[in-house]
Amino acid sequence: MNDAIALNTIWVVLTAALVLFMEGGFSLLEAGLVRTRNAVNVTMKIFVDLTFGALAFYLVGMRLLFGHGPFHLIGGGPIAAPGGLPLAAFTLFQIGFAIATASIISGAVAERMRFSAYIAIVAVTCGLIYPISSHWIWGPDGWLAQLGMKDFAGSAAIHTLGGVMALALAYVLGPRKNRFNADGSVNVFAPSNIPLASAGAFILWFGWFGFNAGSTLDAHNPSLAAIALNTFLAAAAGGMSAILVSMAKFRIADPSMAINGSLAGLVGITAGCAYVGHWAAILIGLAAGALVIWATGWIDKLRVDDPVGAVAVHGVNGVWGTLAVGLFDVKEGLFTTGHIQLFLVQALGALAVSVWGLATAYGLGRLLQRTVGIRIAAEDEEEGLDIVAHGIPAYNELERFSDGRQILFGADAEDALFVKAGDARPTV
Amino acid sequence: MNDAIALNTIWVVLTAALVLFMEGGFSLLEAGLVRTRNAVNVTMKIFVDLTFGALAFYLVGMRLLFGHGPFHLIGGGPIAAPGGLPLAAFTLFQIGFAIATASIISGAVAERMRFSAYIAIVAVTCGLIYPISSHWIWGPDGWLAQLGMKDFAGSAAIHTLGGVMALALAYVLGPRKNRFNADGSVNVFAPSNIPLASAGAFILWFGWFGFNAGSTLDAHNPSLAAIALNTFLAAAAGGMSAILVSMAKFRIADPSMAINGSLAGLVGITAGCAYVGHWAAILIGLAAGALVIWATGWIDKLRVDDPVGAVAVHGVNGVWGTLAVGLFDVKEGLFTTGHIQLFLVQALGALAVSVWGLATAYGLGRLLQRTVGIRIAAEDEEEGLDIVAHGIPAYNELERFSDGRQILFGADAEDALFVKAGDARPTV
Amino acid sequence: MNDAIALNTIWVVLTAALVLFMEGGFSLLEAGLVRTRNAVNVTMKIFVDLTFGALAFYLVGMRLLFGHGPFHLIGGGPIAAPGGLPLAAFTLFQIGFAIATASIISGAVAERMRFSAYIAIVAVTCGLIYPISSHWIWGPDGWLAQLGMKDFAGSAAIHTLGGVMALALAYVLGPRKNRFNADGSVNVFAPSNIPLASAGAFILWFGWFGFNAGSTLDAHNPSLAAIALNTFLAAAAGGMSAILVSMAKFRIADPSMAINGSLAGLVGITAGCAYVGHWAAILIGLAAGALVIWATGWIDKLRVDDPVGAVAVHGVNGVWGTLAVGLFDVKEGLFTTGHIQLFLVQALGALAVSVWGLATAYGLGRLLQRTVGIRIAAEDEEEGLDIVAHGIPAYNELERFSDGRQILFGADAEDALFVKAGDARPTV
Repeated sequence: MNDAIALNTIWVVLTAALVLFMEGGFSLLEAGLVRTRNAVNVTMKIFVDLTFGALAFYLVGMRLLFGHGPFHLIGGGPIAAPGGLPLAAFTLFQIGFAIATASIISGAVAERMRFSAYIAIVAVTCGLIYPISSHWIWGPDGWLAQLGMKDFAGSAAIHTLGGVMALALAYVLGPRKNRFNADGSVNVFAPSNIPLASAGAFILWFGWFGFNAGSTLDAHNPSLAAIALNTFLAAAAGGMSAILVSMAKFRIADPSMAINGSLAGLVGITAGCAYVGHWAAILIGLAAGALVIWATGWIDKLRVDDPVGAVAVHGVNGVWGTLAVGLFDVKEGLFTTGHIQLFLVQALGALAVSVWGLATAYGLGRLLQRTVGIRIAAEDEEEGLDIVAHGIPAYNELERFSDGRQILFGADAEDALFVKAGDARPTV
Repeated sequence: MNDAIALNTIWVVLTAALVLFMEGGFSLLEAGLVRTRNAVNVTMKIFVDLTFGALAFYLVGMRLLFGHGPFHLIGGGPIAAPGGLPLAAFTLFQIGFAIATASIISGAVAERMRFSAYIAIVAVTCGLIYPISSHWIWGPDGWLAQLGMKDFAGSAAIHTLGGVMALALAYVLGPRKNRFNADGSVNVFAPSNIPLASAGAFILWFGWFGFNAGSTLDAHNPSLAAIALNTFLAAAAGGMSAILVSMAKFRIADPSMAINGSLAGLVGITAGCAYVGHWAAILIGLAAGALVIWATGWIDKLRVDDPVGAVAVHGVNGVWGTLAVGLFDVKEGLFTTGHIQLFLVQALGALAVSVWGLATAYGLGRLLQRTVGIRIAAEDEEEGLDIVAHGIPAYNELERFSDGRQILFGADAEDALFVKAGDARPTV
Repeated sequence: MNDAIALNTIWVVLTAALVLFMEGGFSLLEAGLVRTRNAVNVTMKIFVDLTFGALAFYLVGMRLLFGHGPFHLIGGGPIAAPGGLPLAAFTLFQIGFAIATASIISGAVAERMRFSAYIAIVAVTCGLIYPISSHWIWGPDGWLAQLGMKDFAGSAAIHTLGGVMALALAYVLGPRKNRFNADGSVNVFAPSNIPLASAGAFILWFGWFGFNAGSTLDAHNPSLAAIALNTFLAAAAGGMSAILVSMAKFRIADPSMAINGSLAGLVGITAGCAYVGHWAAILIGLAAGALVIWATGWIDKLRVDDPVGAVAVHGVNGVWGTLAVGLFDVKEGLFTTGHIQLFLVQALGALAVSVWGLATAYGLGRLLQRTVGIRIAAEDEEEGLDIVAHGIPAYNELERFSDGRQILFGADAEDALFVKAGDARPTV
């Protein structure tokens, strides 16, 4: 293998590893942002993404996304990796992208979805829903690609899609108990573990260098370093603006907003990282950090319950990032060149992905609801999915004895469990 | 330095960094899986691996492994790195491999071993035991290498060895208090921190890309990307099968099994990642995920107490991975080509490493037991090694005052400590 | 882009990502080492480094550091990246270095500094203080560079500077309440979360490969692998010697010392990693591990309160690492060649950076103290910055109801909060 191909191969393998490590980031972020009693469950859902989701994409979705296919709508033919890259490297990288979409959904449906329903949603998302709409944008003959849509690393293909699917499924599921009051007011369930959630955010930020710069799939791409710098600058600007807005608005520097502001900056630059200047990256990030705070309130007003802010971070800022390319693209952006065509194409792309994501997720959610069931029982919600679906709390000093008794030592002793091992658990 | 060598150098340095970062993964995994009162101790044991273990391998073990030596049994001569790679890069990578072996042992002996005995075991393992048996497989003239044994990244050399040493030492130590009842039944001590253990698993999964693909030691290896994809697919399949088996068998999706199933898939593919096809990688992973659940029960039946499942993950699946090369190797596997010779060589290799590991670890354990002591006192086990050997609990709001009083604030206040600073701690 | 430049570009982008990921390490390390009630605050301070600090360096500091300028004292002219490297890659890497300096300060001023004062300190440090003194060492015409000072990756430029600024600001702030008694004795406030702090240390260790080896800025540098190995060996030796000294001195293997010993080894080798042999790296690490324990006691005697040991790790060992180049440099070290000139230059460099850091930090601290205020109120310190500045504890099962009530469930329920949402929080 010559140096040029070898260089591209290790570049894609290493960045694929970074993208796949983002699953660890999602896991800690979501485990830290939900209530303790569901921290194991969100963690297990990330394992579902990495296992069921990855295999569904590998076995089915990959060809639907990157193969040639009819009507510019869906793939299916054989796949070739770009530029002489080994197909295995390309495939590994794309698996990371597919399961990121699932992990976006995971947080929004936390604390109340049946675990088996989540497995089904992940398999269908990674095997069908994500590959089809991404074929439009990234496929060899997708209709949005042919219109000239620019979505370098997936503000639309991944984040908008994941965000609107999260919105639809959170709507179908309904809010957690006690989340919204009859008078229209909102109760906040505080994150259970801020250092853990922050650790997740730092891992996501780290992995995002792979996500965006790795999307070159070519170490020789002259924009590679600029993509990485844009990625960082937008995240920094997003975090800064969210901290400043939260200090101005709430008189505190809210950690959830610092986390989600940084992530919003990353989502916002994902489409445009290869197409916009460094100043534009900062502006995109500044807007994203403010937008995520506004959107969090707006989604509360819709009375949709999104425990981790996934819709605000990925959905709203996915759309923002997609549109921002139309504004700041150095060659054909509205603000940079005065041409509006790209902006309109980007808007059409964001709309198409949003409609597709909302419709498929809503349909899938209703289907599951009417068949196997999508929401856990009220008493199981009270107890928390950790015990109900996984048999163990997140944090504990628990010893299980062979007669079926379980005894919790230490801080949580007052919640001591006496669940018989092997009790039927029909809600899993 | 020309491009080709420079490319190989950064590839090996970056993957070595990933392999060494796996120590962080072991630390979180083990700290999350043991009981809270020993979480500091397992963390400190990983520091022992990274310090005492690494220096023992660097100063002694490296030459025993990679130097030429007598009778194809032990090295000792000067070392050359393969393919013009700088020796420092090769050495750094190999340090990561040596201490991974020690970290496998760490979990199985958790919660009851004297800290100083652990230091001795790590030094001997990294300095002597691991280098000698790995010389057979990877040395320039090892006897198993000459028979044609294939162990690309160490299912036998590292995981089988670490796993059987863990088994022997856990046996010598005896089970933790209350673990097994007189009537043959088993008490389960639940993991103390599932999100932490999961974070460890995600770091290990991430680092494993370095472990397996980095073992090419050459960025130009045409199988490099396929190795990385095989690594991922086996992990995904292992996690999926462990989740499915646990749902079928226990009616819950058990988080320890999801974690250990993914790790078992990784262990299982470690020998064959460069030799088997993608479908075989999935099959190897599926079997590994089921095997780890079966093996966990089997080790309980042996009445050997392995707090983190290290024997089931690394020992049993290390053997499985070694044998699987004999079954699925694309050039000479039993299932793929009908030839049985490679399979027999692999079986002999697994047997040789197992006998070596069991014998040396058993001997070393008994030697320590009869001299400096290997197991802590019963009352120290009750209190936990964190206080006994390290003077501090893992999680606390503790303030130590200058008169020697220590006061715990917050959740654990009822366990407030009044240990005099400077009290003799003879059991360290 | 040709292979050679492409190779250097991905090398620098990947190592920059590692350096920036170290911020996650700082966050977990500091959150684990401080008391629980300030764990959110230290985490948020790392977000400040990554956002305000990074943008201040990008917009102002970068040119001051790397541009040509008057009197060899301060930069300002246009910047060129070395060796044809894309400027964006060079910039991204340098941002990581600048904010590491801020993150060193963060820990030493933990638990008592106003959040807005911290933002100001970070902006001035990354925008002005760090770029100016680093220009002396690394600028195209800095006066220390012209004298022949050798500071490969910043034992002086980053760690000494950050460490002495930490010392001056901790002095200006004064100690935490109850930390020192009138009779001269010292109360130890124990770390709140050892596994979290250790996870931070492992991330820092991992990122340090990027920090030191990435400082080549050139994948073709023939010392690259030796730099990485030196980095590891010094860390291993530092951790080992700190564990041994702590076992000898305290009769326990102290986890804070194992952590800080490893980090001290890393700090100590940062200047010399490209200039000294592997044996010297081990010696430098061994000394660093002992030095950090001695320095921790010495700083207590100064009655300066450094909650995480940042002065001992970064300040004292930054100086040690800078001097060690003068002792062990293979070409002109005092011990290796008998020449004293380099040693004197290194001592002058360490002195100059120390004076600059102490003076600017002391001045800045007093200025903030007399204007906007630098220390929180005594009752806010009692409550902890997490509630006061960020409105939420680190670990909780808190639900906020729309009438402003907040109720904590679970372990901390006795501390249940009834803070009205929207209460003025003038101390932020």
